[in-house]
Amino acid sequence: MPGLLLGDVFPNFEAETTCGRVKLHEYLGDSWGILFSHPRDYTPVCTTELGRVARLSGEFSKRGVKLIALSIDSLEDHCGWSKDILAYNCEKSECCKLPYPIIADSKRELAVALGMLDPDEKDKDGLPLTARCVFVIGTDKRLKLSLLYPATTGRSFDEILRVVDSLQLTAEKRVATPADWKPGECVMVPPNMPEEEAATLFPAGVFSKELPSGKKYLRYTPDPR
Amino acid sequence: MPGLLLGDVFPNFEAETTCGRVKLHEYLGDSWGILFSHPRDYTPVCTTELGRVARLSGEFSKRGVKLIALSIDSLEDHCGWSKDILAYNCEKSECCKLPYPIIADSKRELAVALGMLDPDEKDKDGLPLTARCVFVIGTDKRLKLSLLYPATTGRSFDEILRVVDSLQLTAEKRVATPADWKPGECVMVPPNMPEEEAATLFPAGVFSKELPSGKKYLRYTPDPR
Repeated sequence: MPGLLLGDVFPNFEAETTCGRVKLHEYLGDSWGILFSHPRDYTPVCTTELGRVARLSGEFSKRGVKLIALSIDSLEDHCGWSKDILAYNCEKSECCKLPYPIIADSKRELAVALGMLDPDEKDKDGLPLTARCVFVIGTDKRLKLSLLYPATTGRSFDEILRVVDSLQLTAEKRVATPADWKPGECVMVPPNMPEEEAATLFPAGVFSKELPSGKKYLRYTPDPR
Repeated sequence: MPGLLLGDVFPNFEAETTCGRVKLHEYLGDSWGILFSHPRDYTPVCTTELGRVARLSGEFSKRGVKLIALSIDSLEDHCGWSKDILAYNCEKSECCKLPYPIIADSKRELAVALGMLDPDEKDKDGLPLTARCVFVIGTDKRLKLSLLYPATTGRSFDEILRVVDSLQLTAEKRVATPADWKPGECVMVPPNMPEEEAATLFPAGVFSKELPSGKKYLRYTPDPR
């Protein structure tokens, strides 16, 4: 069965996009990357999603994240549809073109290789469309996190920004982020880090909770950023 | 490569859990299901996550969703650790035991079969731990949505409730939910539904947006629930 697992090197595919032919690893360079797919151009949920990503593109570039979209539609449709997305979602003055390329995977090669199809959504020839996938790719070109949503369910781009913040913080500092964490909130100290090391690494303080097991693993420290 | 795609029937595995031996499809019955994995018992982020799920269990059962957790730890560890989760996360009066079973996948059989391992996190023998996976399973036992987060990044359970609301609404009514949708907000009318049919199905009204392409696919209607 196709699909990508955490830690897999993301395939360095070459594809036609609205910004010319792109080779993924070269396009990403030293940046983080997000490849996200949508089912079909000229459809409603996709328009709300790609517009939201356009509006958030400043937030992604602040974090050094390069975006690239994908569906099985043609370049021609991508270009025509982009005008709809911009007209509906953006102030004309700030966006006169979408701030990310869209891959035209019209032969479904990437969709199949990356396990992105949604069998419940078919085109007029009965072929499945792409689902709403998100792949977050680290600077080492490895898969760090993925989402697989069906065509019926638009994604939360606040959640995608939240996980990028967590992935980047935890790649840089030896901490992990708890359930429902947001930037600025306390983070967790790894359970295998000795107390003395934690005290040195986290001068703002390490706070541990008493637990029935008597084990001292539930240790917090303020967001070190 | 292992892994599950949208629309795949979820394997009807049998496993040891903190509530006895469970066969997945029988455990789920006619309910929706969420199988979620965590890296390791007695670790900090996992304690915040499983506690949050315990606190939210009323929200999941209101929606007819059965929960089941999984890690590669032993039943003995699951039972000991459950006391820590409850002591830290719940009011004693409301939870005297975790409101969902935890699978002991100590041989990593399910973790491998379902593509749940995180190669960056290893136990003392160098074997990889489970990642933070979420599989949302429909009443037809098919995969509807999945998340794959690494050990460092705790999940957002508000997002998980949000997608359950969308999946259930869109399974019941012929609508889809836009980017960042929350229950009560407008939903989208499918692009292939004729205008007259939409008018009959959605008596609260269908509102469409003018777009440069002149196509009439961006149609909203109030949440029909």
